Amino acid sequence: MGIDGNNILAESLKKQGVEYVFGIVGIPVIETSLAFQAAGLKYIGMRNEQAACYAAQAVGYLTGKPGVCLVVSGPGLLHCIGGMANAQVNCWPLLVIAGSCPEDHEGIGGFQEWLQVESSRMYCKYAARPPSARLIPQHVEKAVRLASSGRPGVSYLDMPATLLTAEAEEDKVPLDYYTAGAIKPAHPDPALVEQAADLLVRAERPLVIVGKGAASARAEEAVRQLVDNTKIPFLPTPMGKGVVPDDSQWCVSAARTQALLQADVILLLGARLNWMLHFGQQPRYAPNVKVIQVDISAEELNNSIKSEVAVHSDIKPFTEALTKKLSEKKFSLQPAGNKWWQTLQDKQKKNTQFVEAQANDKSVPLNYYAVFKTVQANIPKDSVIVSEGANTMDIGRGILLNNQPRHRLDAGTFGTMGVGPGFAVAAAMWCRDHAPNKRVICVEGDSAFGFSGMEIETMFRYKLPVIIIIVNNNGIYSGFDKNTMKEFQSYGDVAQR
Amino acid sequence: MGIDGNNILAESLKKQGVEYVFGIVGIPVIETSLAFQAAGLKYIGMRNEQAACYAAQAVGYLTGKPGVCLVVSGPGLLHCIGGMANAQVNCWPLLVIAGSCPEDHEGIGGFQEWLQVESSRMYCKYAARPPSARLIPQHVEKAVRLASSGRPGVSYLDMPATLLTAEAEEDKVPLDYYTAGAIKPAHPDPALVEQAADLLVRAERPLVIVGKGAASARAEEAVRQLVDNTKIPFLPTPMGKGVVPDDSQWCVSAARTQALLQADVILLLGARLNWMLHFGQQPRYAPNVKVIQVDISAEELNNSIKSEVAVHSDIKPFTEALTKKLSEKKFSLQPAGNKWWQTLQDKQKKNTQFVEAQANDKSVPLNYYAVFKTVQANIPKDSVIVSEGANTMDIGRGILLNNQPRHRLDAGTFGTMGVGPGFAVAAAMWCRDHAPNKRVICVEGDSAFGFSGMEIETMFRYKLPVIIIIVNNNGIYSGFDKNTMKEFQSYGDVAQR
Amino acid sequence: MGIDGNNILAESLKKQGVEYVFGIVGIPVIETSLAFQAAGLKYIGMRNEQAACYAAQAVGYLTGKPGVCLVVSGPGLLHCIGGMANAQVNCWPLLVIAGSCPEDHEGIGGFQEWLQVESSRMYCKYAARPPSARLIPQHVEKAVRLASSGRPGVSYLDMPATLLTAEAEEDKVPLDYYTAGAIKPAHPDPALVEQAADLLVRAERPLVIVGKGAASARAEEAVRQLVDNTKIPFLPTPMGKGVVPDDSQWCVSAARTQALLQADVILLLGARLNWMLHFGQQPRYAPNVKVIQVDISAEELNNSIKSEVAVHSDIKPFTEALTKKLSEKKFSLQPAGNKWWQTLQDKQKKNTQFVEAQANDKSVPLNYYAVFKTVQANIPKDSVIVSEGANTMDIGRGILLNNQPRHRLDAGTFGTMGVGPGFAVAAAMWCRDHAPNKRVICVEGDSAFGFSGMEIETMFRYKLPVIIIIVNNNGIYSGFDKNTMKEFQSYGDVAQR
Amino acid sequence: MGIDGNNILAESLKKQGVEYVFGIVGIPVIETSLAFQAAGLKYIGMRNEQAACYAAQAVGYLTGKPGVCLVVSGPGLLHCIGGMANAQVNCWPLLVIAGSCPEDHEGIGGFQEWLQVESSRMYCKYAARPPSARLIPQHVEKAVRLASSGRPGVSYLDMPATLLTAEAEEDKVPLDYYTAGAIKPAHPDPALVEQAADLLVRAERPLVIVGKGAASARAEEAVRQLVDNTKIPFLPTPMGKGVVPDDSQWCVSAARTQALLQADVILLLGARLNWMLHFGQQPRYAPNVKVIQVDISAEELNNSIKSEVAVHSDIKPFTEALTKKLSEKKFSLQPAGNKWWQTLQDKQKKNTQFVEAQANDKSVPLNYYAVFKTVQANIPKDSVIVSEGANTMDIGRGILLNNQPRHRLDAGTFGTMGVGPGFAVAAAMWCRDHAPNKRVICVEGDSAFGFSGMEIETMFRYKLPVIIIIVNNNGIYSGFDKNTMKEFQSYGDVAQR
Repeated sequence: MGIDGNNILAESLKKQGVEYVFGIVGIPVIETSLAFQAAGLKYIGMRNEQAACYAAQAVGYLTGKPGVCLVVSGPGLLHCIGGMANAQVNCWPLLVIAGSCPEDHEGIGGFQEWLQVESSRMYCKYAARPPSARLIPQHVEKAVRLASSGRPGVSYLDMPATLLTAEAEEDKVPLDYYTAGAIKPAHPDPALVEQAADLLVRAERPLVIVGKGAASARAEEAVRQLVDNTKIPFLPTPMGKGVVPDDSQWCVSAARTQALLQADVILLLGARLNWMLHFGQQPRYAPNVKVIQVDISAEELNNSIKSEVAVHSDIKPFTEALTKKLSEKKFSLQPAGNKWWQTLQDKQKKNTQFVEAQANDKSVPLNYYAVFKTVQANIPKDSVIVSEGANTMDIGRGILLNNQPRHRLDAGTFGTMGVGPGFAVAAAMWCRDHAPNKRVICVEGDSAFGFSGMEIETMFRYKLPVIIIIVNNNGIYSGFDKNTMKEFQSYGDVAQR
Repeated sequence: MGIDGNNILAESLKKQGVEYVFGIVGIPVIETSLAFQAAGLKYIGMRNEQAACYAAQAVGYLTGKPGVCLVVSGPGLLHCIGGMANAQVNCWPLLVIAGSCPEDHEGIGGFQEWLQVESSRMYCKYAARPPSARLIPQHVEKAVRLASSGRPGVSYLDMPATLLTAEAEEDKVPLDYYTAGAIKPAHPDPALVEQAADLLVRAERPLVIVGKGAASARAEEAVRQLVDNTKIPFLPTPMGKGVVPDDSQWCVSAARTQALLQADVILLLGARLNWMLHFGQQPRYAPNVKVIQVDISAEELNNSIKSEVAVHSDIKPFTEALTKKLSEKKFSLQPAGNKWWQTLQDKQKKNTQFVEAQANDKSVPLNYYAVFKTVQANIPKDSVIVSEGANTMDIGRGILLNNQPRHRLDAGTFGTMGVGPGFAVAAAMWCRDHAPNKRVICVEGDSAFGFSGMEIETMFRYKLPVIIIIVNNNGIYSGFDKNTMKEFQSYGDVAQR
Repeated sequence: MGIDGNNILAESLKKQGVEYVFGIVGIPVIETSLAFQAAGLKYIGMRNEQAACYAAQAVGYLTGKPGVCLVVSGPGLLHCIGGMANAQVNCWPLLVIAGSCPEDHEGIGGFQEWLQVESSRMYCKYAARPPSARLIPQHVEKAVRLASSGRPGVSYLDMPATLLTAEAEEDKVPLDYYTAGAIKPAHPDPALVEQAADLLVRAERPLVIVGKGAASARAEEAVRQLVDNTKIPFLPTPMGKGVVPDDSQWCVSAARTQALLQADVILLLGARLNWMLHFGQQPRYAPNVKVIQVDISAEELNNSIKSEVAVHSDIKPFTEALTKKLSEKKFSLQPAGNKWWQTLQDKQKKNTQFVEAQANDKSVPLNYYAVFKTVQANIPKDSVIVSEGANTMDIGRGILLNNQPRHRLDAGTFGTMGVGPGFAVAAAMWCRDHAPNKRVICVEGDSAFGFSGMEIETMFRYKLPVIIIIVNNNGIYSGFDKNTMKEFQSYGDVAQR
Repeated sequence: MGIDGNNILAESLKKQGVEYVFGIVGIPVIETSLAFQAAGLKYIGMRNEQAACYAAQAVGYLTGKPGVCLVVSGPGLLHCIGGMANAQVNCWPLLVIAGSCPEDHEGIGGFQEWLQVESSRMYCKYAARPPSARLIPQHVEKAVRLASSGRPGVSYLDMPATLLTAEAEEDKVPLDYYTAGAIKPAHPDPALVEQAADLLVRAERPLVIVGKGAASARAEEAVRQLVDNTKIPFLPTPMGKGVVPDDSQWCVSAARTQALLQADVILLLGARLNWMLHFGQQPRYAPNVKVIQVDISAEELNNSIKSEVAVHSDIKPFTEALTKKLSEKKFSLQPAGNKWWQTLQDKQKKNTQFVEAQANDKSVPLNYYAVFKTVQANIPKDSVIVSEGANTMDIGRGILLNNQPRHRLDAGTFGTMGVGPGFAVAAAMWCRDHAPNKRVICVEGDSAFGFSGMEIETMFRYKLPVIIIIVNNNGIYSGFDKNTMKEFQSYGDVAQR
């Protein structure tokens, strides 16, 4: 019996554990989307491929399995490039699949003809066109495996119209192709765990930084136990929030600047020392700070500064081993009487007072703090919080709390504007299927909202209960009259994060 | 006296004749946008870089000078990739300028760090990062010149934050750098003009196809004179419409299929034999059709079929020379009594009757013909018509007429959805400054509108009098219940253009 | 009847006019080379793909039809990258064909698996993998056409093992696919010819520069007539030598520096204002020099300086039109009594005296001039001269004369070392078949010779009568003892060309 | 005090532990090579950049520190592309450094101007141009670190002429930049070690495959102990030879086909299941074979087949842990009485007899076996053996034995011809400095030798005691006369490896 490329692709994705597909269909992938749904994949039609790609990667992060973004050829794929880069930079599993022009039209001006595999290469861990229908399962397996293995990222599969409709004998197509999935992660060198423990034990001002990598690694239990056992103050990175609850007593977000500046030993769990952490460099850190860096990517280690202990390992086994080791060493800080804790608590109190004062100022126009305090007071603690914007995202991050991992989705490491509505659609789909009582709260600056605001229609069409809050500071820059030039320039300074 | 990179860039663009800048600013290009305006460039703030890039390229096509798209680093640039490809495929002059992360943050995780020049390369005729502030004018000159010379297309300039703020001694910066601009086009080999004329004179069923290239070449006077003198039936490609007015008596759009199928000699003026023209191949053309192909790109000649006469030349001098030659040969068709003309007119009449019948059917929901006939009856003849969608664009193209060149902007050679609102913003800005009484009519399918619908806010903010007509056939595909699968599949067939 | 990919490829190349194939065969292209020879293509087996690629491009330049370089997958192709770049920079027609790993081994570590099309892209006008055996003729046609049309350059075709052995029904394969070949070139705008003529007529110190582009364009008759008619002094670029004979009385090579520095109007025929011509910029040119630039590439015009007259045209029709126009204007310089001619002749005499004095100095070790004068005295005037090296090439260029176009092959625009023996093999093959009495003289520096010296075996194996002269100055740099460091540094200065 | 780019580069490389530089110098890197030597780096001048690049990567493999390849701009770099790919595929540390044209000549036709960083990207783990002299140390650190960390590979640094000569204040250049070097490798998940041990204990026909990765990981002691303790038969891959001595009684190379075909559990230590191991697929393996795969690259795991146990770990800690675990389980095979061992020994005996019979046949022309047996009998056991060719390499591999790791250098995973002389130069330099009594034996097919035979001059110039043996089967394919075509085709079949 015959089976065509569309159905081979659909069955292969299903077999590899893919659950969600976000996309915009048209020639030549209309039948593809039908085959996907017939195979039991959930397809969500979006309004712009850009937003579809953001949705697919968010579901990849939430589920650990790559979300699929299905798009048409040429511009359909190229509208995803920003999203592919964002997923690659965020290390989120994503599989983009695009139709492409019939192979016999290549070189003579086919409909939306483009060098799609080559265009995708820079943004991918794996990009390929299956050479024949029979080989689709093999390439789907590799695409899914690489997107979710090692440091997760992006895969791309190119599907010419001629391949999608190619018929193959069903018994010659390996539809039962193997499913390897994500590989089991590497463990740390025990000697390095020992070194790390020694360093922490001897530290006067230790600090744990919990990154998005810890969330990706599903290391929340391990990290919570480490923090709870040792009582070392910790800072989450923006999407590291919730790995340990933000309202943990060991969280020192409100004294972030101070904590970074004065720590003498920093344990870095799945965070990169990039711009978000000021490269680990002076003047934002102490000159002699010692960093214990743990990362799944060997190439990330010692990048930007030399770490005192550089551990190539998955976050979870390292953290478990370290907790055990520190427990053997009977190490635990006690805030009471501890000078380092005292310093941080003083600073936190001061910052909290400032925020409270602002929040109580209800003069119009409302300031950010007043807005976010009200929001925070009214949302369930286990909400998924999506956020983007400049001040909106930055100030909101401190006030809107997460108490579960992977429940914050924002502009991320790549600082991308336009991600919010797509992320919210993905989160709402995931909640609907996996946690129906959970709410998705989308907090957007008015400028940020403009990128993908049309996706409200998608939310409406699929009846997704997303709550969108737009914090409108009239943030669109539209030019100026000459007298206000100076003013704008100072605004520019303020806008710098 | 010192001058910084922002101002050198602004002055250089001004010197090179740039007029419009569309963009979204943020770090590190806020000051850049201010410097641009201080230098007299017109800056328009959009809602998504994707739409900004479509706007900038439309203004490039309308004015012949590259429009500039100014965006932030990383995702800001990558949201333009689809637009860059669209401009490159449409052969429209566009200059994208993006900020990039400070050079000393390269390799250590800078804010929105990306290999921007490499990402742009595939979509560009020229892509570079000026190596120093002093060299900015040289690279701006080349970027503008290449975008508008030969076959026009895209340039990209990468501006690291450190370069934008670098100070140079004003007297060491060649702000008076030369302005070469677009180069004068090549002329045809007279022997080929002679051959072309001979072929047309001997043809029984000649046809002229007028492409977007004739519009880009500003060849309207020449082409109109050729058609008027020779009375050869002509067909415009979608954006070739208006080079000769659609309501010319020599236009045979209503008999397009027939005309292509039966012509024995085709004169192809600035159109590519790509998917839009069915590759010039059977079964859509007669087996022995002879093609006279005229193109500014040597590489385009003889692509997909072997042309009988392949002329490497700008459209305008070729057409002028051909008209002269045919006039010397006293060649002119006369519709009355001419069998070829008779065939085409019969077919046109039949098609027109079908359209009229449809248009008069006012049953609800309204059919496309009824909609477009009403629109056509109510818009000024010199309107700029922007259109995208599937049926909306395809059916509308036949009914909404253009009588001026470069007054139709649509999904184009790349078949891109999402271009409409950006194009409309650009057209409206251009009308405001250059033809204030002209109207911009934007006819959108409901699916197409979803890509960039947020730009309505931009139109509102700049008070641009764009009229948007959305033809809503509920065209968003949202998945299906199993029983309707068959129905969708047949829909798929219909949707094929 | 069946036909396989190897034979379809062979027949297609033959049909497109390919004559020579240089390569190194192995898996999977052994049968390919057999099929090529069975189809009547001439195959020459070389010793390193690097040299094979240089040979193929030289034969492309000599014949105007792309030479083919046939190599194995992976390293076989990648050893050609330098050669592909060299051909692209020299604008020489070249078609590289590489086998690649079987398509079903892609992604799992196939033998010499590599992304070959993507690797070739940067160095090519066209790079593709034919999607099926049936489509091979179409891609061969395009590859050959683009390599030789417009500004000539490089094409690449990727042939997986599975495609080479794929069987197709012979009657379904378009073996009679059309042959368009190189397209007829563009002509100049007559108004620009007029401007050019006016400028020359009014010039006090006019100069013609004859570039390799004039040789590529087969414009020798036209350029010779221009120079002979007008008696304007001319300078050839290195591979522009012989378009007009070097021993023409109008050649002012011996006063090159002076000529460039003092000319007030320069007519640039197919030469780029790149490093070889000091970018057309001060201090090597007069501040107010006016350049008439003629180039087949629109993008080359006005690059590096603003030309007074920039003509997008093939060299030949432009030169013919200019000669006619100048003749109408009765323009002609007369050396006798002409101040400009007098200046140049004085300078030439001085330089010639210096060279003669050097050449007469027979002290050991022999100086370069003595060597080259002797060589020049002993070689036929119509020899093909191949040359590379530093001093060897630079000094030899002035003394070894060409009197026919395309009879000098050297390191070229890209300054590539290692080209000599490959070029010589190609030239000797071409002589053997097309001009059997002609000699190939290969003048090599000892360092340059080291790159591809093994190809002497190839010459021997094919009994090619190449004369190789190695000018040995012991030019290999092998490190130093500390005392000689200063000496080496001064050597560095001298070595600068 | 001032310091220029050349010297900053030299000092940075020295600081990062670089020892050897192979290259060909010219503009603009002559002074660079002098600065390198002044800083104590060892510079070796080669004859072709291709061979220089092979030499540099071999020294990288031998020392674990990237060898540097220093070349000129444009063709200089592009001649290294094959070598860069070879190193990347072999996972060998290599750092290529090329000069490039002055930055102010970019875009206007600079000497050997090329997009060098972009050209290198596909072949590199890291490719960059330091943005300023001050940032050179940072980029050198990253280039060296990435070349040698994780899965080793290639880095590229681009050095414009203007950067090499740029002067910086010495106290503003961080010459004391940190030295992180290669990072400590990841360890295995103990649960996977347990699974692996269980699988081996229960296996009836276990087999160990020792790959080049085990050699790269310096895991020889661990692997030798595993094999010696457990007495599991092992097979080395070509460059895995010597990790355990080839003359170990547990080596079953002489029964390779049988061993692969019948093993029921395979422990794969640092070898990829690529073409060299027939992809781990039928018909070369048993249908139910279970593979324990250990690899430093997560992305390599489960590629081509699904491994029963897939371990992301460095080879050394995994092997040590496994040996310990198996020892705890008191696992050891005993050849005597073991059916699996018996089968393999029978097969080995048969093969050995065949080889002996061939070797004793001294008829002329000598057969391969007779040649290699004689060679083997006459070379010291600890020689470095370099080999390439078709039959020469394949047959020689079985007879020429290694008893130390990293003492075999051949065409490798990429199957590259032309590597031999470069590898031999590198090995001889390394022996000279680190093991002066060791011999380098270079066994070359006559075709293979042709690629880089000129490097004999380099060996001579540096007085390197390399012994080159050329096995001449007249293997150059030079075309054919028509009658012999059939014969060649059958030859083609034979030549297939």
